[in-house]
Amino acid sequence: MTPQDSAGRGLFITFEGIDGSGKSTQARLLAEALRGLGRDVVLTREPGGSPGAEEIRALVLEGDPDRWSAETEILLFTAARRDHLERTIAPALDRGQVVICDRFADSTRMYQGLSRGDLRGLVDQLHDLMIARDPDLTVLIDMDPDTGLGRALSRNGHEERFEEFGPDLQRKMRAGFLALAREFPARFRVVDGNRAIELVAAEVREIVLDALT
Amino acid sequence: MTPQDSAGRGLFITFEGIDGSGKSTQARLLAEALRGLGRDVVLTREPGGSPGAEEIRALVLEGDPDRWSAETEILLFTAARRDHLERTIAPALDRGQVVICDRFADSTRMYQGLSRGDLRGLVDQLHDLMIARDPDLTVLIDMDPDTGLGRALSRNGHEERFEEFGPDLQRKMRAGFLALAREFPARFRVVDGNRAIELVAAEVREIVLDALT
Repeated sequence: MTPQDSAGRGLFITFEGIDGSGKSTQARLLAEALRGLGRDVVLTREPGGSPGAEEIRALVLEGDPDRWSAETEILLFTAARRDHLERTIAPALDRGQVVICDRFADSTRMYQGLSRGDLRGLVDQLHDLMIARDPDLTVLIDMDPDTGLGRALSRNGHEERFEEFGPDLQRKMRAGFLALAREFPARFRVVDGNRAIELVAAEVREIVLDALT
Repeated sequence: MTPQDSAGRGLFITFEGIDGSGKSTQARLLAEALRGLGRDVVLTREPGGSPGAEEIRALVLEGDPDRWSAETEILLFTAARRDHLERTIAPALDRGQVVICDRFADSTRMYQGLSRGDLRGLVDQLHDLMIARDPDLTVLIDMDPDTGLGRALSRNGHEERFEEFGPDLQRKMRAGFLALAREFPARFRVVDGNRAIELVAAEVREIVLDALT
């Protein structure tokens, strides 16, 4: 079975946003809330999310930032995504589960397609050829770039490989994500992340419960 | 610089053939012969051929044969090829060197495109999108499938990952390589590998010296 054949009786939700936007926290809070309502939830993330994809993640994120060209990096992320989709996401959707994924193809459209040169066309062609699956719902946690940067820099465990970012890149990425939301209005919902975590979580929950009914 | 931009003043030669056809030996003998004539030669192989591509090779070839789907495997091989092309092949051709590569995209067309389902179309689309570079000359060492199988099984160090092959697959691959040679007549030369190594090497040398002058 290819992922594209999957009937997908479940719901496939992705979270996107700039570094430090709080999307990982919101993905986790949504998973907890839905479980509290008795829903069967798979919480996953990219790059990674399946044993093979986690190995590819380690290969991409470790070492020198110039270790891979932008094109090779896009291929590795697409290989990881294909594995993640085949082994984790599509089977869960077939079982009727709700899949919540922290980052998906939109992050590649932004980070590899925008920040490492003008490769958006290549990213899209590769996505259409090898992935060809879009989320049912994408929650964009929109965040002031300076606040996001401060949060991202202050926390531990952030992977080294993409640490060379600054205010300009954060602003460019934020604008890019908002443009993406306008490009795919049917699946994108933009949530203001510049508020207390609980307020943001309540809005996300409302959006998702609407989509589930 | 992208590999496609490379003027490629050197000559890019690939060796293809079924397992046990003797192509690696012939690639090495050709490299030695050309060096003896004062040519600057880079002898390389796929999958692998650059530090990054060798790491991807290890990821693909180790472990359970069902570890990766055919599609993910094609993506990983293409990532390795892109790195190999950018870091090893294109720079050498730009320096005017002769690059001799043991297996290249034609092996993916055969092994992933033919033996793991009917994925040739996908392999070709991915190649056109991400590699877009063909050898100047491809030497196909044509070999009786049973002889090739016996040789491949008797030698040590053969990677486990693709060991599940037998007479039927060898015959199918041989026919597939010959069909590929008819598909790309401008760059393919078919050499009868069912002869003494020295006789095969002499014919290969003659073909390449013709191409170099």
